[in-house]
Amino acid sequence: KINGDRLWASLMELAKIGATEKGGVKRLALTDLDKQGRDLVVGWAKEAGLSITIDQIGNVFMRRDGTNNALPPVMTGSHIDTQPTGGKFDGNYGVLAGLEVVRTLNDLKIKTEAPIEVAFWTNEEGSRFVPVMMGSGVFCGAFSLETAYAARDVDGKSVGEELERIGYKGPQVPGDHPIGAYFETHIEQGPVLEDADKVIGVVPAVMGLSWYDCVVTGMEAHAGPTPMGLRKDALQVSTRIMQEVVAIANRYPPYGRGTVGMVQVFPNSRNVIPGEVKFSIDLRNVNDELLNTMHEEMLAFIDKTRSETGLKISIERVSYYPPCPFHPECVDAVRNATAKLGYSTMDVVSGAGHDAIYAARLAPAGMIFVPCKDGISHNEIEDAKAEHLEAGCNVLLHAMLERARI
Amino acid sequence: KINGDRLWASLMELAKIGATEKGGVKRLALTDLDKQGRDLVVGWAKEAGLSITIDQIGNVFMRRDGTNNALPPVMTGSHIDTQPTGGKFDGNYGVLAGLEVVRTLNDLKIKTEAPIEVAFWTNEEGSRFVPVMMGSGVFCGAFSLETAYAARDVDGKSVGEELERIGYKGPQVPGDHPIGAYFETHIEQGPVLEDADKVIGVVPAVMGLSWYDCVVTGMEAHAGPTPMGLRKDALQVSTRIMQEVVAIANRYPPYGRGTVGMVQVFPNSRNVIPGEVKFSIDLRNVNDELLNTMHEEMLAFIDKTRSETGLKISIERVSYYPPCPFHPECVDAVRNATAKLGYSTMDVVSGAGHDAIYAARLAPAGMIFVPCKDGISHNEIEDAKAEHLEAGCNVLLHAMLERARI
Ligand SMILES: NC(=O)NCCC(=O)O
Ligand SMILES: NC(=O)NCCC(=O)O
Repeated sequence: KINGDRLWASLMELAKIGATEKGGVKRLALTDLDKQGRDLVVGWAKEAGLSITIDQIGNVFMRRDGTNNALPPVMTGSHIDTQPTGGKFDGNYGVLAGLEVVRTLNDLKIKTEAPIEVAFWTNEEGSRFVPVMMGSGVFCGAFSLETAYAARDVDGKSVGEELERIGYKGPQVPGDHPIGAYFETHIEQGPVLEDADKVIGVVPAVMGLSWYDCVVTGMEAHAGPTPMGLRKDALQVSTRIMQEVVAIANRYPPYGRGTVGMVQVFPNSRNVIPGEVKFSIDLRNVNDELLNTMHEEMLAFIDKTRSETGLKISIERVSYYPPCPFHPECVDAVRNATAKLGYSTMDVVSGAGHDAIYAARLAPAGMIFVPCKDGISHNEIEDAKAEHLEAGCNVLLHAMLERARI
Repeated sequence: KINGDRLWASLMELAKIGATEKGGVKRLALTDLDKQGRDLVVGWAKEAGLSITIDQIGNVFMRRDGTNNALPPVMTGSHIDTQPTGGKFDGNYGVLAGLEVVRTLNDLKIKTEAPIEVAFWTNEEGSRFVPVMMGSGVFCGAFSLETAYAARDVDGKSVGEELERIGYKGPQVPGDHPIGAYFETHIEQGPVLEDADKVIGVVPAVMGLSWYDCVVTGMEAHAGPTPMGLRKDALQVSTRIMQEVVAIANRYPPYGRGTVGMVQVFPNSRNVIPGEVKFSIDLRNVNDELLNTMHEEMLAFIDKTRSETGLKISIERVSYYPPCPFHPECVDAVRNATAKLGYSTMDVVSGAGHDAIYAARLAPAGMIFVPCKDGISHNEIEDAKAEHLEAGCNVLLHAMLERARI
């Protein structure tokens, strides 16, 4: 069994970097704080005797040799970048649970046949830069290194520049790195486990996701003298689309999701009719056919709105991945470990994307969920119980050992 | 008659400070650029022999003595701060037309009985800081100097600090400065004169205005795993109110106006359900009773939305002034000057607020409008014809001379 106190202490230590007043963490991908977080974790890995490899998109692999190093490693991992209003556990738990597995194997002087690796992937959150799950996406070839390097944040800084600046543009070609099997532990980020009072969520699949940038262009003009009938108000037209995003999701329960999370209004002055509004759209479903129907309905609504209002509306898809069912062998490994350890359990479909879905394109993969308080994440009040985090880490240890063999 | 070429040349010179790529001007109140603009105009005034007084809110009065300096000055003026997407004429025209009147009197060696003053008022636009029309508002006692000093921009900088920083916090107590009569020339900022093909707009009144800050507080949570039915999406609730603002204005034609110009979404991340949205509301009408009805309907809608959604919604009025009819004597002075000069003319109600409405609380006041291209202002493509600007300035000269007496 792993050491739950040590795992908790490491989580709390890492959470100090970018700690917010409300008890959360703001450590956006490729910022100075991200560098500090990376340095801390890499330092711990070295203390644990792991060797470090960094690839060109900044993914970091921390390796514990096996007795047969010709075998591909059994890998676990997640991310340490956070949302602007992020918590202490999202991603960070998956990385530090991996480190705790290694520390436990060291303590118990257990040698595995296959090597064990702990990875953290660059810019999983997709909050500062899109595409989301960038590091694992480049790694598995979902999109190119050039696409990723060219991504810019709202201030115009690019992934390529920022990686270089914080010293995490490594030499390895992304993907040029074998994986035997991949496991990822994560807080659920939803309310299902807590509601059902279960400790371990076995994850059969992750919902597919489709992200868009929508830009509505009207005509900025003075809010006082411009008669109502002559306006081309980009915000008013945008609000119709924003409402439709939610209406579409509501038409496809229980797994339809629709969110507008980011809005920029131009010129954003009280007495100026908005001339341009840019906003994000996030659609999800666990069924790819339904996700596609939602996509089509949204495009149709935008066409209708364009012709009804006469305003220019552009819509561009900026991220997409289909729903991802996990590999039966890995799902079973998680199920077996949970049963062996005697934790209460149920299956939970993941609404959030995870690096595991990209790893799943290269190797058998599976995930382990633990409950988080009120199902809340992407919020500074995100919280989880030490005993649940410990249980998830124990399941990870046993699932990895099943694949890596002693 | 005034010198139209000289007026145009001064306008183009001032427009270089803060010039934007699209041909507009971005010179926000109390920025370094505002200081440069102020310095330029003050320099011109000194060259024209005017004496300068600056008050504690940064209003600048540029004076040409009369033959009887015991008489209160006949004043003209406007503002030189602009919108973020501002043009070359809004405000700037009113100040430089005043300067052109003085230059003309100098050229023709005309002595007036009452002194002549040209003023520019601080932060008319209200774009960086509220309340709007801040300098003239403090001057007439509509709100206090302390309120104005305490106003902060989105970066947290205050009016008091910024005035000090740019060196325009003067010694004079605001309002401690007599005015005999006040005239203001301005581009119409609406389409009425151009549509009717008239050169001079006589302004009987300015619409009343009510500005609000509305904050909707929900709960930020992950856009993927959070079921639609469990969300407290602050943006979705905000879009209802945003649409109602326009619906209310449409119920009170022809002078009802409703605009949401400024929106901030928190945390503004694609995969986070917005936990808080702050936005501005701008309601206007030329009839104070109708403006009040609009106000009441908005509050009632917000109450209804609050109880329907369960989200916290706060609404605060941040600016208000009632409709302002101008003084019959000043309106007549404008009418007479226009008739004498033979320009085509009509009455135009102003939808935009102007410093003249605050001056009107202390002295008889009136305004002169000239057409602007397509009725567009608060937009970088704002444009006006040199011949119209010249005509407005000639009307100003004659209206001021009627009051100041030769
Ligand atoms: N786990 C997680 O928050 N991933 C970010 C991508 C998403 O929005 O699902
Ligand atoms: N003239 C002008 O643009 N004034 C700003 C205040 C308003 O929004 O009416």
